[in-house]
Amino acid sequence: MAHPQETFRHTTFTGTSILAARRHTVASTTLKTQLAQFKSTGRYDCFELKWHPVYDDHSMWPVPKHLFWDSDLAKWIEAACYLLESHYDEDIDDAVQYMVRSMRAAQHDDGYLNLHYTVVDPKGRWSNIRDMHELYNCGHLIEAALAHRAYYKNDDLLGPILKYVSLIARTFGPEPGKLHGYPGHPEIEMALLRLYTQTGNQDAYKLARYFVQERGNPTGQEGRHFFEWEAEQRGESPWMRPNHYPEANAHWYNQTHAPILEQQTIEGHAVRALYLLTAVADLLCVEKRGLGAMSQSGEWLATLHRLWANMVDRKMYVTGGVGAIKQWEGFGIDYFLPQSTDEGGCYSETCASIAVIFLAERLLALDLDARYADTMERCLYNNVMTAMSLDGKSFTYVNQLASSEADKSGREDWFWCACCPPNYSRLFGSLGGYLWHYGTESNDNSHVFINVHLYTSAKVAFQTPQVTTVELQQQSDWPWNGSVAFTLQAPQDTQLTIRLRIPAWAEGGFTLEPALPLASNKSTSPLEKGYLTLSPEYLTANRTFTLVIPGFTPRWLEPHPYTNQNTVFLARGPLVYCAEDAQNPGETSHFRDVVIKPGHAVVTEEHRVHEASGEAYIALRTKAWTRSLGAWETGEPVRGARGEQELVDERDMVFVPYYLRANSGGNGHMRVGMIKS
Amino acid sequence: MAHPQETFRHTTFTGTSILAARRHTVASTTLKTQLAQFKSTGRYDCFELKWHPVYDDHSMWPVPKHLFWDSDLAKWIEAACYLLESHYDEDIDDAVQYMVRSMRAAQHDDGYLNLHYTVVDPKGRWSNIRDMHELYNCGHLIEAALAHRAYYKNDDLLGPILKYVSLIARTFGPEPGKLHGYPGHPEIEMALLRLYTQTGNQDAYKLARYFVQERGNPTGQEGRHFFEWEAEQRGESPWMRPNHYPEANAHWYNQTHAPILEQQTIEGHAVRALYLLTAVADLLCVEKRGLGAMSQSGEWLATLHRLWANMVDRKMYVTGGVGAIKQWEGFGIDYFLPQSTDEGGCYSETCASIAVIFLAERLLALDLDARYADTMERCLYNNVMTAMSLDGKSFTYVNQLASSEADKSGREDWFWCACCPPNYSRLFGSLGGYLWHYGTESNDNSHVFINVHLYTSAKVAFQTPQVTTVELQQQSDWPWNGSVAFTLQAPQDTQLTIRLRIPAWAEGGFTLEPALPLASNKSTSPLEKGYLTLSPEYLTANRTFTLVIPGFTPRWLEPHPYTNQNTVFLARGPLVYCAEDAQNPGETSHFRDVVIKPGHAVVTEEHRVHEASGEAYIALRTKAWTRSLGAWETGEPVRGARGEQELVDERDMVFVPYYLRANSGGNGHMRVGMIKS
Repeated sequence: MAHPQETFRHTTFTGTSILAARRHTVASTTLKTQLAQFKSTGRYDCFELKWHPVYDDHSMWPVPKHLFWDSDLAKWIEAACYLLESHYDEDIDDAVQYMVRSMRAAQHDDGYLNLHYTVVDPKGRWSNIRDMHELYNCGHLIEAALAHRAYYKNDDLLGPILKYVSLIARTFGPEPGKLHGYPGHPEIEMALLRLYTQTGNQDAYKLARYFVQERGNPTGQEGRHFFEWEAEQRGESPWMRPNHYPEANAHWYNQTHAPILEQQTIEGHAVRALYLLTAVADLLCVEKRGLGAMSQSGEWLATLHRLWANMVDRKMYVTGGVGAIKQWEGFGIDYFLPQSTDEGGCYSETCASIAVIFLAERLLALDLDARYADTMERCLYNNVMTAMSLDGKSFTYVNQLASSEADKSGREDWFWCACCPPNYSRLFGSLGGYLWHYGTESNDNSHVFINVHLYTSAKVAFQTPQVTTVELQQQSDWPWNGSVAFTLQAPQDTQLTIRLRIPAWAEGGFTLEPALPLASNKSTSPLEKGYLTLSPEYLTANRTFTLVIPGFTPRWLEPHPYTNQNTVFLARGPLVYCAEDAQNPGETSHFRDVVIKPGHAVVTEEHRVHEASGEAYIALRTKAWTRSLGAWETGEPVRGARGEQELVDERDMVFVPYYLRANSGGNGHMRVGMIKS
Repeated sequence: MAHPQETFRHTTFTGTSILAARRHTVASTTLKTQLAQFKSTGRYDCFELKWHPVYDDHSMWPVPKHLFWDSDLAKWIEAACYLLESHYDEDIDDAVQYMVRSMRAAQHDDGYLNLHYTVVDPKGRWSNIRDMHELYNCGHLIEAALAHRAYYKNDDLLGPILKYVSLIARTFGPEPGKLHGYPGHPEIEMALLRLYTQTGNQDAYKLARYFVQERGNPTGQEGRHFFEWEAEQRGESPWMRPNHYPEANAHWYNQTHAPILEQQTIEGHAVRALYLLTAVADLLCVEKRGLGAMSQSGEWLATLHRLWANMVDRKMYVTGGVGAIKQWEGFGIDYFLPQSTDEGGCYSETCASIAVIFLAERLLALDLDARYADTMERCLYNNVMTAMSLDGKSFTYVNQLASSEADKSGREDWFWCACCPPNYSRLFGSLGGYLWHYGTESNDNSHVFINVHLYTSAKVAFQTPQVTTVELQQQSDWPWNGSVAFTLQAPQDTQLTIRLRIPAWAEGGFTLEPALPLASNKSTSPLEKGYLTLSPEYLTANRTFTLVIPGFTPRWLEPHPYTNQNTVFLARGPLVYCAEDAQNPGETSHFRDVVIKPGHAVVTEEHRVHEASGEAYIALRTKAWTRSLGAWETGEPVRGARGEQELVDERDMVFVPYYLRANSGGNGHMRVGMIKS
């Protein structure tokens, strides 16, 4: 197991796929746009430790608006270090080096490094790890430091960070006299495990494991829940709480309502939940590599599967968005998935779907099942890719499935809480790491495997422990059609297995050219948990082969009946589509009364080019109607049962990929799920 | 204009209608049950001012659990005084007299009378009128005192209360040095206006008008919003708030986000909103009687109509329940009306629908329109009547439209916040006051009118200013059938007009026997805003007449399409029906997958008798199916569009009136709105 943020370096995007195009945009435009935001908002030079007027703003109590600045810089540094190698830029390079210098200078003698508790509240260190993101910020610094070392080949950032980690290891832990706490916002756990696998740092491993195992202990600190004990130390009323807590002591908000192993459903703030579960999966991956031992591994894996299933089956939008509830940026009750603010919510934070991708990648390493890759792809091409404009300059934080007068469809240049834009940058910076897993899987490392999770145009090249170089190239027009041509290069005697994901939406269908030999003694399905295995024999005989996935004809999807959404979604391949007023001028009510007859309406395809970017895409066209509200138009609350609903204004509607929304003008009217007749 | 809590004395229920039966149950059982609760919980003798252990319970911060005890006693006294005349009981009489004695003894020399600020926090008086219900409690004491005086014909309670009102008038008002505040929970405004109309007390009128007009002033106290100024005086952080506030300074929670005239939609805590609007309507009723002047009366009336329409058209359940959101016990966004906890909420507090009845009665006095009476009846027979068991001993606070595993259908003996049970008692104690409005309407008081809003079996007898005695009797089997026989007694020369409500659900249909004379020069509809006018000529000729309202065949209703509820409701006359597992044994999933084909299924009626109470009712029977979840049964989140939904397990289902739910055993499975095929 190696982290995708490390392995991506072995992958090169080739050709003009939309993934490659987006990664190029991040490198050439987005990093600079974000750097300009850093400069105009005070972030860029904040580690000079001067006072900034925003430090006086208490409106988000108890969270100061600058609380995440450390992590904003760290994520940007991380993204920059991923991209400098393929897209060198002197300004970016200079900015990274300046930020690292200022961070080094801002570090305390004992290793502590945090903006807020250095400039604004120098005496408050470790007094509110529930809300104040100290450990979260440190986690991002660790990730930045690892990325920095990999690109710059020096310890200018990692050195100070290791000192900081050592301080944290002296502060937190099971030993008497240490704080028996864990971060309110997980992140550092993932970072520490990555640090451990890269450097072998034992403090990092022990800390991460402790944070995970201790979390939610009802009697961890002096017989109390750590966060209750901590609040009491601060002199807080137990009935007082931050605005985003739905109730006093809502420990489920940060997944501390019970030890993780006892949690039955996925709850609370979505990004926190998913960063935490990713760290749990990382712990199991470490164990799988024989680098550490978890007790109760089977139960930890079952917990991962249980909470994943609860999320994907009951709390995820068709776009891969999770976390329907705005107040706590997180999960609501099962099947509560309204599309828009005026239907009761729809948050679907960009970072949350990025975190689903993190978790899915780990789960694929633990248990090769195409369901994880399908979800990873769903998130990537829909809820995540819609979060940045094609020009790379504006972003979304919330990714609703339908607009409303209160929340029109659009993007922003920046956010006061700017977690999402640099998260997008660092994901695309390391995106190659999510396409495939590879390595050796036999005891003597002689057997090489490549599990291909995502299709695009790209090439991976790596060396086995026997210093064999293996190279696999895939070439496709994904996500527009399902033909993927592979070329393999490896010494003829390499024992190699390749497994290819067959997406569930292809309904088990695929063709392979040259065809697989007929299996005489195997089960009739050549698929195992959604992966097609190409044996060493096949690969020895066929260094080039082509996989064709069907399912690129448009299809209508429906959400689970318990969502109470009488809607249909239009999809094609991995893409979910939406209607916008930009392509359907004249729409003035957010498509709220547009009705589709999925059983009858033919859907046709149109090859189009997005004008400003020159990017090609396939639009879909189908018949739609407007439902007449009849007596309800006068506001009548209930009336006699309708027979057939009256449908008027038959017309053609154009749908575009959800990722393309808010890139073509219009007045911000958009909808994914249409009323079904 | 006279308040229904006064005029009800002129009405006698006759026969065995369910309204009469329920009123009898309240008088004979409920008052005693509630008295027993008072005694076991510490409420009964709380005005002895001794310490009670519950006073140490801070779990509902900032609201102590005993905060409403004053009002609990007051509402019970009020109900008892309404019922003693028709249902004398020595124990009830003794208890009223004891409570009144203890309240008198507990009053401070300056008139102040409040449990919490006498026993628990003697120095905190008037320091938190946003949350601490001092003025709310006083309002209920005023209403109790008026009811007490009307029954006991002495000032034992009203005397002290007038002294208290005088203190409040010296404390609050526009004059410099007074507090420019208003109660966080309105109630006292209604009570003061009732006090004014009964006694002419000018302090009461001025205070009520001030509270209403000042409410929501953004700069009322030292240039600040009163509640913000007040919180600052208490030294509170502006970011700290009670648990039931969804956000800091959520002034909309208590309808102080803007002056009332500027409020465009009905928001926040439902009972507060409706008590407040009832007081606004009372102010206009006072003005209509020439007893006081409001400036901008037209705008106040428009505000009432605007907020009423927003509530009834967009925020009311078919049962008359309002306030879908549990957290703030109040209104959500337009059309957000899920049926149950597992669909996203459904609060529908009993007191809120009682308050709708209060407001509707006032609106009918201002503007005779059957829509108000229809809503009053919808609330009374459904959301309100379901709130007490047939035996009068257990209650609901929340009235969901469907049960769930988290919130099964059932009732409780009592609540720590016990507002609803005594509110039910006092409503039924004074219920006769809501059946009709009557009086004189010409300048010289010679023209008598009776507007009949609700049908049942009852008799009203009153004297006009000319000391003419008028008596009208109605006899019917309402709500089971629509035939209502009237008998009028009045001197032959009385100029009398009777107006009869024709419910909207009768779709304008009615028959009158003897028939109206053919009108030659009138519009074709004899109805004006849903009321049928019987002229003096007709009434001189016909002292008995029978109105027959159709619409007592079962009908299917649907909610507004924007509610996203693909459901149908079964109704008959004014009653909404529900399915329960008591009558449909074997149901184990809250009828969540039960499907109705309203266009095809015949509904038949069954006359039944509720075993324990002997009360007759009509059950409804129709075909139902279970939908097969198909691929979704495995938890699959999205799948291809269904064609026809697969329906299995065709069977007969029995529906009972919603008010009858949780009276017949079973395991608490219940649903009103069924999935529509």
